[in-house]
Amino acid sequence: MDRTRLDRLLGDVDTDGYLLDASQDDANQLYLSGFTGPDPFLTLYADGEIHALVSGLEYGRARTEAAVDTVERHADYDYEYGGHEERYDMYARFVREKGVESVSVPPRGPVGTADALRDRGIDVVVDGEDTLGEVRAVKTDEEIDAIRDAQRANEAAMRAAESLLAEADVLVDPDDDALEPGTLRHDGEPLTSERVAEEIEVALLRHGCALDETIVAGGAQAADPHDRGSGPLRANEPIIVDVFPRSKATKYHADMTRTFCVGEPDAAAREWYDLTERALETALDAVEPGATGEDVHAAACEVYESAGEPTFRTDPETETGFIHSTGHGIGLDVHESPRLASGAGELEPGHVVTVEPGLYDPAVGGVRLEDLVVVTEDGHENLTEYPLEFVV
Amino acid sequence: MDRTRLDRLLGDVDTDGYLLDASQDDANQLYLSGFTGPDPFLTLYADGEIHALVSGLEYGRARTEAAVDTVERHADYDYEYGGHEERYDMYARFVREKGVESVSVPPRGPVGTADALRDRGIDVVVDGEDTLGEVRAVKTDEEIDAIRDAQRANEAAMRAAESLLAEADVLVDPDDDALEPGTLRHDGEPLTSERVAEEIEVALLRHGCALDETIVAGGAQAADPHDRGSGPLRANEPIIVDVFPRSKATKYHADMTRTFCVGEPDAAAREWYDLTERALETALDAVEPGATGEDVHAAACEVYESAGEPTFRTDPETETGFIHSTGHGIGLDVHESPRLASGAGELEPGHVVTVEPGLYDPAVGGVRLEDLVVVTEDGHENLTEYPLEFVV
Repeated sequence: MDRTRLDRLLGDVDTDGYLLDASQDDANQLYLSGFTGPDPFLTLYADGEIHALVSGLEYGRARTEAAVDTVERHADYDYEYGGHEERYDMYARFVREKGVESVSVPPRGPVGTADALRDRGIDVVVDGEDTLGEVRAVKTDEEIDAIRDAQRANEAAMRAAESLLAEADVLVDPDDDALEPGTLRHDGEPLTSERVAEEIEVALLRHGCALDETIVAGGAQAADPHDRGSGPLRANEPIIVDVFPRSKATKYHADMTRTFCVGEPDAAAREWYDLTERALETALDAVEPGATGEDVHAAACEVYESAGEPTFRTDPETETGFIHSTGHGIGLDVHESPRLASGAGELEPGHVVTVEPGLYDPAVGGVRLEDLVVVTEDGHENLTEYPLEFVV
Repeated sequence: MDRTRLDRLLGDVDTDGYLLDASQDDANQLYLSGFTGPDPFLTLYADGEIHALVSGLEYGRARTEAAVDTVERHADYDYEYGGHEERYDMYARFVREKGVESVSVPPRGPVGTADALRDRGIDVVVDGEDTLGEVRAVKTDEEIDAIRDAQRANEAAMRAAESLLAEADVLVDPDDDALEPGTLRHDGEPLTSERVAEEIEVALLRHGCALDETIVAGGAQAADPHDRGSGPLRANEPIIVDVFPRSKATKYHADMTRTFCVGEPDAAAREWYDLTERALETALDAVEPGATGEDVHAAACEVYESAGEPTFRTDPETETGFIHSTGHGIGLDVHESPRLASGAGELEPGHVVTVEPGLYDPAVGGVRLEDLVVVTEDGHENLTEYPLEFVV
């Protein structure tokens, strides 16, 4: 955490302090407190200091692990497993004891706590700018290393997936009527999206990463960017593999997408792949300090548009073509600031973003390629080493 | 979902409707909408109907998958990637079009949305009772089967952990000075908490489960119920293994704890284990409809107290002995209603709860045993088949 940047941005809010009521599941909480508490706890930033309030069960661990200036426990406020109102009384006293009469909270902070503090005379203002999210967007070298390490684990998982596909043979004339000709087979069984995802997830675990979800989608499934994929995979059509693990140790994410084809893609799929590889390279070239997220998105869109493919810029209603933004920031959350999209602002050194152009149409399938890069003083560094190869 | 129960409880709130703004990460949202949306979306219960509002990207999947009466998309309100205020305008119109002028929201719903709706003239009231949580507490047969299936996967993972411990040999005189005599070794390497946890997590993946975190804690680490454990494990002392996976398909959790000892536990640890096994059996015997969560907790406490061990009932400040509640409901969340603790209310058929007494003291270590049971019409059914065996 860059404390100077934190002090500058949080010191600028129009209230006496910035208050979080969340567990470690909330990226802002994890960032500001540095503490992996499984149950919601309070963190208050005020006057340049960070204060945490945790339960007795968490107190010992919080004192050792939390990256805050003070840690207090419920017992310090004579609260012991009481009702909701008593808990809110404690929260109000905790805030007031820090000399704070007004707090900013993130838009997705809990309304129960906000209303309860208001009832107790503390002014609670929603921070529509999500200031902490903006603080988090610029990473320190240590955070960048954590993301780089997670991307190495991600590459091991991608290799496991690619190997499984490369080893598969193709059922020319299946004896099972439920299987179409062209179905992939591995170890005598139809090779399914679920089986490839399992192999990816086991590889990630072996490399110290947990996972949210994994996308292994072929054929028409790949034409829906949010479809995770299911059932047997087939030869001669693009298979999108999108993996976004989280390091268990650091809690930082990585993200990468490759598109593979077992056998021979048809001409349309081949053209889409080449176009998407060009869109990726062109968009990557545009990533540098001072460029906007909109500039990078435009670079990808122009490649597609000049080839006659629809984008949201040429047709906001289109359901085929390039139908999502070019990328997103990544860190403690898989999706965070900054965006690479229409209307997105200037890139700064330390921003870590994915660049992920793609094309979608149920008639062809889907192709997407995604690298992970950090904005540097004079351009960017690609944190992804995995090669781009379509046919396996 | 038991729609009658839902209608009865949600129909009782003092507002026109019940509103959720959350992603699938929120158990209430997953329950009410039946939709696994990765980004926050709205679900409104009003007049006995459930309405969802999702983005265009999710619309197709939501129409197929969501268990709601109507699905609308942002475009139906002419909203397309606009700013925050335009988004909130859309939310207010969505609510008003259902004839709703006042909504109840859960305490942990987002304050940004609540305040924005208030600014637009809609009354937003915090539901301090967490009514949806109470609806969720009573499970249907289908939900119980989902939890039972997850517990089967959990047992496979526990077997993997137990095997690893049983296969380990004991370093009597380690040549590495960093290792104490008594350290466990497996495959030529010191057997660590992390290694056992990895094996558990791989087994869970192989059985269709994802995982949050896993506790494998020996020695003094086991004396802190929230310590996940790290570093080499040792012989002749209790090792707590607590696993709480989630089925990827159904999203329901299981939960089980066993305590193992490689070699010979000392007399104190042996006594603790026997006492805890008795506390488990006694507490299980108390689980039936009409009994309160407090009754079940009392049953466990009495076993410990009559053996002279401190509990929160005899000493609210104690840091050793039985220092947590006896159990918790489980379902889409690992911890949900009802509680088995002081002040907890009546158990009903369909409640699914863990029963997990334990003893803790850094001087001895920790022992905990946890089964998962469902309250039936005339008692309870234990969903756990894994044996209780201390020495492996």
